[in-house]
Amino acid sequence: MAMAEEVVLLSFWPSPFGMRVRIALEEKGIKYINMEENLSDKSPLLLKMNPVHKKIPVLIHNSKPICESLVTVQYIDEIWNDKSPFLPSDPYQRAQAKFWADFVDKKIADSGTRIWKTKGEAQEAAKKEFIDCLKLLEGELGDKLYFGGETMGFVDLALVPFYSWFYTYETLANFNIESECPKIVAWANRCMEKESVSNSLPDQHKLYDMVLKIKKMLGIE
Amino acid sequence: MAMAEEVVLLSFWPSPFGMRVRIALEEKGIKYINMEENLSDKSPLLLKMNPVHKKIPVLIHNSKPICESLVTVQYIDEIWNDKSPFLPSDPYQRAQAKFWADFVDKKIADSGTRIWKTKGEAQEAAKKEFIDCLKLLEGELGDKLYFGGETMGFVDLALVPFYSWFYTYETLANFNIESECPKIVAWANRCMEKESVSNSLPDQHKLYDMVLKIKKMLGIE
Repeated sequence: MAMAEEVVLLSFWPSPFGMRVRIALEEKGIKYINMEENLSDKSPLLLKMNPVHKKIPVLIHNSKPICESLVTVQYIDEIWNDKSPFLPSDPYQRAQAKFWADFVDKKIADSGTRIWKTKGEAQEAAKKEFIDCLKLLEGELGDKLYFGGETMGFVDLALVPFYSWFYTYETLANFNIESECPKIVAWANRCMEKESVSNSLPDQHKLYDMVLKIKKMLGIE
Repeated sequence: MAMAEEVVLLSFWPSPFGMRVRIALEEKGIKYINMEENLSDKSPLLLKMNPVHKKIPVLIHNSKPICESLVTVQYIDEIWNDKSPFLPSDPYQRAQAKFWADFVDKKIADSGTRIWKTKGEAQEAAKKEFIDCLKLLEGELGDKLYFGGETMGFVDLALVPFYSWFYTYETLANFNIESECPKIVAWANRCMEKESVSNSLPDQHKLYDMVLKIKKMLGIE
């Protein structure tokens, strides 16, 4: 490793994708500079560092950008490989972890967004899909402490940021996640006992207030 | 490695995702049994091996399933690691390769599907997005022989299957990809000189005939 590491994170605090990178850096004990982006007026630095998607999070490590949160978490795992491995060493177990993290991206993130962006029938459909997907994840968790087994791993990092959105989902769509998926909520609380997670996830009520503002801005109240 | 390797691929020949896994196995010189799926009457084996998404391709290695094509290609790279590495060893270069493969999944696959599934304005929008994305990939390719540099790598494997769809896209949406992105077509032809690729990609006209049948079946002629 170079002596003078420079680690900068371009992020936006309500983003579950940004939270993933924060948790990963905290787990590895890496000091970094957090730069909050205003997504309705993106910084020249963000546009330069992620010209393809123009999205946060972007990790800038010694002036070089890494984009896409799951790619970034793997990069962090490979660069700072002396502690807290996120991915197992066995290729089959690695593939399983990548499969479930991809599932979170394709299903949880998508149905979660539809819960707060839609209403009526579309919202009901999103809610059902969200719960069905959480139940599949509950099955994958089984009796393990974490998706990673005895320690938090790649799937835990991918999923736990959405916990900070649970109050928003529940309030806007009028349902209770704990009664549907008690093991997922117990798991999330277990993760929250770790400073890497509790330092990286915003307060659920503060996030809800922000989502109300965003809905107003987007004209989808 | 175990003496008696059993490698089975559940696939459907027009699927670019299935082609990725084929090329990966061919590149590694792995003998495998290909089982074609009928997607309108999925086999009990497919439903058992990919209960979450119920999609091909599924690689079944010594009775254990691996799903999601990019996850599967990485698994193949890690298990048969004695030749033709797909991912570079440098963590930053690895992250870049994963970023662009993810870009192919999010942008090329999606806009490509919309080219053949829609018409009118939606098709025009898809065509424009498809070309814009190919041009970004052309920029990333630069003057290299392959995205992987001197040899085919992860991004090459992710992208080249879509070449077998070029004739379908062009015919259904009335445009010419080579005149828009000559370097991408030259690159694709370079890949096709490899047996691993030419053995894995179907004839473009045969694929077009199948797409016409699928459109008829879906009622989107």
